[in-house]
Amino acid sequence: MRISELSRVTGVPVATVKYYLREGLVPSGRATGATQAQYDESHVARLRLARALVQVGGLSVASARDVLASLDAGKGSLHRVLGAAHSALPPQLADDHDPTRARELATAWGWRVHPDAAALRQLEHALQALADVGAPASDERLARYADLAHRIAEVDVAGVPTTSTEEAATTVVVGTVLWEPVLLALRRLAQEAVSAEVLDDY
Amino acid sequence: MRISELSRVTGVPVATVKYYLREGLVPSGRATGATQAQYDESHVARLRLARALVQVGGLSVASARDVLASLDAGKGSLHRVLGAAHSALPPQLADDHDPTRARELATAWGWRVHPDAAALRQLEHALQALADVGAPASDERLARYADLAHRIAEVDVAGVPTTSTEEAATTVVVGTVLWEPVLLALRRLAQEAVSAEVLDDY
Repeated sequence: MRISELSRVTGVPVATVKYYLREGLVPSGRATGATQAQYDESHVARLRLARALVQVGGLSVASARDVLASLDAGKGSLHRVLGAAHSALPPQLADDHDPTRARELATAWGWRVHPDAAALRQLEHALQALADVGAPASDERLARYADLAHRIAEVDVAGVPTTSTEEAATTVVVGTVLWEPVLLALRRLAQEAVSAEVLDDY
Repeated sequence: MRISELSRVTGVPVATVKYYLREGLVPSGRATGATQAQYDESHVARLRLARALVQVGGLSVASARDVLASLDAGKGSLHRVLGAAHSALPPQLADDHDPTRARELATAWGWRVHPDAAALRQLEHALQALADVGAPASDERLARYADLAHRIAEVDVAGVPTTSTEEAATTVVVGTVLWEPVLLALRRLAQEAVSAEVLDDY
């Protein structure tokens, strides 16, 4: 297909497609003339992922290029590619102290996660914020949350397509970033529903 | 207790205590001299809540005053007070279109929520964002998320103290705002753990 068709199929404007081609986020097409090239389904998939990283994930073009490079390098280990995508997504927290408690908790729950996973730092920061306001998180409540988070993750991972690495990575980026506000809104609505049932009774 | 003791017990600096008193977030103490007043446990509880709203919830002092006023007005209906606290917390979304689908979903799940609940708008916005990138949320996946969000809310509501309205509202504000990043970090860690188990197999 020509670049106009690539744009139409993906819904990405031609100017953005050209920008991503120039910046190396999407590989060049097969040249069919001095100013023309042909693209195929692999370009469609890569373009969708590039857009998800930049527009949904909020990554810079340079960060997106790094993630895509790790995807190209990591053929055969989708899990490692997903880890790279995860690490590149916001929130990016300063590497200021070692996520000791978060790592201990993950180990206690039997979760196999990379010791440098960005989410460990996110968890450590969140636990510190609770301690700072005098409302530290108990191991018991964290364990109940962890159990439910694991069930949510099972739903998420079951929804990842196994057809191609690009499609899988796109689903992970969109699912991580855009389902987070869904989950938070559902939790608040459920809190209201549960409190209507429980708290009004006294 | 004197103002210095009130500051020491709550960890809120004296200058901030004086500011909150002046702005009406915390009621005046019992005057014991031209420049001195006595405070009691009710001031401690109210000061903790005011700080939670402003420093944790990110509310303006004016918004915090509104929430506290609804708390004073709503004696006897804790559920309504919690609704007011929820509505005042970020994210504050523009009231641009009616949260039709979110309301239908809540009804379908049997959740008793106020038809103008802020979380309905949050959910509608999040669902719209998914549709915009061509990855609309299915009713089935939303139902599974809703079930798990309801279990999380049960953990949350069970942790709300029933001793006083101030303490309950403080717990709700802290629990809503500061446990959100905990939940998101746990979900990402769990995704990594689950994908290690599942995705590496192919």
